[in-house]
Parts: sequence; structure tokens; C-alpha cells
Amino acid sequence: MPVFVSEIVIDCADPERVATFWAEVLGWRAQREPEGYFWMSESGVDEENDLKLIFVPVPEPKTVKNRVHLDLSPRGADQEEELQRLLGLGARHADIGQEAGLLWHVLADPEGNEFCLLRTRRD
Amino acid sequence: MPVFVSEIVIDCADPERVATFWAEVLGWRAQREPEGYFWMSESGVDEENDLKLIFVPVPEPKTVKNRVHLDLSPRGADQEEELQRLLGLGARHADIGQEAGLLWHVLADPEGNEFCLLRTRRD
Repeated sequence: MPVFVSEIVIDCADPERVATFWAEVLGWRAQREPEGYFWMSESGVDEENDLKLIFVPVPEPKTVKNRVHLDLSPRGADQEEELQRLLGLGARHADIGQEAGLLWHVLADPEGNEFCLLRTRRD
Repeated sequence: MPVFVSEIVIDCADPERVATFWAEVLGWRAQREPEGYFWMSESGVDEENDLKLIFVPVPEPKTVKNRVHLDLSPRGADQEEELQRLLGLGARHADIGQEAGLLWHVLADPEGNEFCLLRTRRD
């Protein structure tokens, strides 16, 4: 196809704070650009085919549940251990009216952006 | 790292409509699950390491600019040709107060989810 998803962009009040959190979560390196935004990718170099996360400053605050969110999957690691690691990094549990007993955890980053921690797959 | 970004989840009023649009944009195949959501990935098979887009039904409407959005990059294709293709698939120009003269186009999908079409990279 002539287009591909190259970037996921997250609006921030404090891009450095949010980027620092996600860098620790993913083990990627947050890189500041002179324009005031931060980016990161798995390779850490600006390769076109490497999915980037971009953290941009915006004036407006977050007001509602995000309509687009990320799911994280443990890579071999235990879901419960990962939950504790993420909470230690500054994630918090988020109540978006979800049912009890889900197989995943609904969390939020330091600016309240919801994300889910899925169960560990064993396939 | 013990976690990775495995899914991008998009809340929808009509998951089939939104998934169909994105499937045409990306050349991926939208797959319906019995629970009422749709998913797609580049490989089209449920491989853990393959980034998925997930389209889930939610009761609440979209009310504000999305705080998380996707950027698309042309893969060799010309940006202007891609713009026309996306508009033909049902994308529309979105006004989020951006400056004139940007190097990218701000667009929205059939439910108003903002996304950007970046310029063609030549590196």
C-alpha cells in the first residue's frame, strides 16, 4: 500500500513528563527536538519504517476518555509483575466504567492517557 | 523490554464503517470478531508481534479533538496523489486550528478521528 502508519502522536501538557514515562515503560529513549516535542522509537534512529511515538505540546487540557489508546502486551514477562512495574513508573489504575474481572488492566499515564496492559500470551 | 505496543484501539460508533475505511487506507483486511469488534494487521494473522488496529463499539460519541492520533507516511508514493486517494475513500480535511502552509495534511476519518498525512520522505 502507498501509505503506512509511521507515528502515533500524543498531545501533552508536559511532553517531557509523558515522554519520560513512556520511555521507561518501553525501554526506548526519549529525544527532544528544538521545536519542543519529543520522539522515540525502538531503534532510536530516525528511520522511516520504524514506528515512532511523538509527544507534542498542546494548550488544551485532557477532558474526556481518549478515543484512541494503546494496548501493551508483556513480552514473555508476567502480567502481574509488569503491572507492578508500570505502577512504579507512575501509571495508575483508570476507571472507565469497565466490568470487573477483565483479563487486562486499564491504566493511565501521568497525564491520564488511558492504556491497557494485556495478559501474557503463551502462543 | 518486558512490554511492547501491540495494539492501537479506536473507539467507534460504527466499528465496521471505521474499520472498512482504515482497511482501504492501509490495504489491510478488517476482520470481524463475534464480540462485535474488528481488528486488522499487516500480516492479517493473529501474531503477537504484529501491530494491530482494533475498532471497538462504544456508546459515547466523539466530542473533542482526539488526544492521540495516527500519522500516515507515503511509501514512495506522492503525497498529493495519496491525499486524493484518501479523500476518495471518505477522509475529509480537518480544521484543528493548524497554521497554513504545513508540510502535512490534517484529515479525519468517517467518524471524525483526526490523522495526518505526512510528506513523502526521500531518504
